[in-house]
Amino acid sequence: MSYARQFLDTYPGTINADAGVLAAAIDALSDCAQACIADTEADLSEQNLAEMVKCIRLCLDCTDVCTATMGIVSRQTEYDANVARPLLQACVAICKSCGDGCERHAPHHAHCRVCAEACRRCEHACRELLDALR
Amino acid sequence: MSYARQFLDTYPGTINADAGVLAAAIDALSDCAQACIADTEADLSEQNLAEMVKCIRLCLDCTDVCTATMGIVSRQTEYDANVARPLLQACVAICKSCGDGCERHAPHHAHCRVCAEACRRCEHACRELLDALR
Amino acid sequence: MSYARQFLDTYPGTINADAGVLAAAIDALSDCAQACIADTEADLSEQNLAEMVKCIRLCLDCTDVCTATMGIVSRQTEYDANVARPLLQACVAICKSCGDGCERHAPHHAHCRVCAEACRRCEHACRELLDALR
Amino acid sequence: MSYARQFLDTYPGTINADAGVLAAAIDALSDCAQACIADTEADLSEQNLAEMVKCIRLCLDCTDVCTATMGIVSRQTEYDANVARPLLQACVAICKSCGDGCERHAPHHAHCRVCAEACRRCEHACRELLDALR
Repeated sequence: MSYARQFLDTYPGTINADAGVLAAAIDALSDCAQACIADTEADLSEQNLAEMVKCIRLCLDCTDVCTATMGIVSRQTEYDANVARPLLQACVAICKSCGDGCERHAPHHAHCRVCAEACRRCEHACRELLDALR
Repeated sequence: MSYARQFLDTYPGTINADAGVLAAAIDALSDCAQACIADTEADLSEQNLAEMVKCIRLCLDCTDVCTATMGIVSRQTEYDANVARPLLQACVAICKSCGDGCERHAPHHAHCRVCAEACRRCEHACRELLDALR
Repeated sequence: MSYARQFLDTYPGTINADAGVLAAAIDALSDCAQACIADTEADLSEQNLAEMVKCIRLCLDCTDVCTATMGIVSRQTEYDANVARPLLQACVAICKSCGDGCERHAPHHAHCRVCAEACRRCEHACRELLDALR
Repeated sequence: MSYARQFLDTYPGTINADAGVLAAAIDALSDCAQACIADTEADLSEQNLAEMVKCIRLCLDCTDVCTATMGIVSRQTEYDANVARPLLQACVAICKSCGDGCERHAPHHAHCRVCAEACRRCEHACRELLDALR
């Protein structure tokens, strides 16, 4: 069982969504941030650097938004829809763009295929959480 | 002159807003993140800890959202309104809440007054940037 | 297979340690940061708040150091022992302290037991990486 | 007066160094992180991208280490020399490398000159804090 799920099962506060949906989002956000950090570094190691610049910027943006979103949705007790909802919408948008950008490089760079998968999973998990949040 | 303004004046890419408004937002976001980190620590040092818990959570959320927003608005070349606008809206919302929360403690805790000022300034600068962004 | 291992297996740059040891460290650092964010929030939800303050501060420190260390060891191409080694030493020290602090609360708070496990695993993985790095 | 100094002057906890030296370090760490984020973006906008890759990686590392160090030295009450000292040493090392790397590009790229200044100031402020910390 993931740490996120273990924490939600032992959390003394109130959760504003189904615990399984929330844990899946926290795990996907953490994995996506980690994948984007790794893909930025791998992109910087490629020969066709000029073609990778857009992908690098998208990965940097995706790292920042996923990291912040993981923090905000982990703190459920002062949950505020006016913060969490637009943040999750920004996160869906950057995961979509970053996933699209990485997919374009996937035929030539295996690391971009791995990053695209992490972005797709995170986009999906954040959409599910947006639907599930009260 | 602040570093943010010096960078925008020497930036080889394209900026999607007035440089003065953007630099003011970057500086306010950086200052607000720093203030919220410091206020979290000061809150944890107070005697009336149970009354400070909400303020601590708001400061933690505000740190995370300001840090991510600073990164996203600093990367202007792949500017995407679908990411930047909801993120700035989330940032306005948490700066408003955190500023309100800190202001309530300002009569008794001078550090909360300082944090409230940083939050108010950041909320205002993010609203201005939302209006200025193309 | 974890994302970290998939990235190292497709990384076009040079790795300065055994890929398995490095991937284990990256995964443990990411999990430990996530666990400490969750435990901070759970601690703030407890009744005996005054007794939890030290644990909260250790978790905040551990989050920050693990996050930075994950970034630095993920960027292997400009690897610099003068940066990576003291950072890993700082990370071992805070994971040890935070693990000890959480273990003390483990009999009463199940979330602290989960966090202690993540800290122990991260401390161990960082020690292994320190030994493995050239 | 900077926010860092205002917070230290209203901080209810114990400080383990001269308040002026500590405030100068917190301000320099915050500014250096902000400068390195901006310089990464500016570097990615340059034509001679292959020559900028090392500078980009150093700026990414410097952002991560400065951000973590700012958090750790801001939380003075559970100050632990075994964490703070190696972290500050890692920070001095990456600020030195990043400052050197940026200075090499300063004749051609004004943004690298600005970043080099922020790195030099941060390296100096962290050395002063290392000397001042009990």
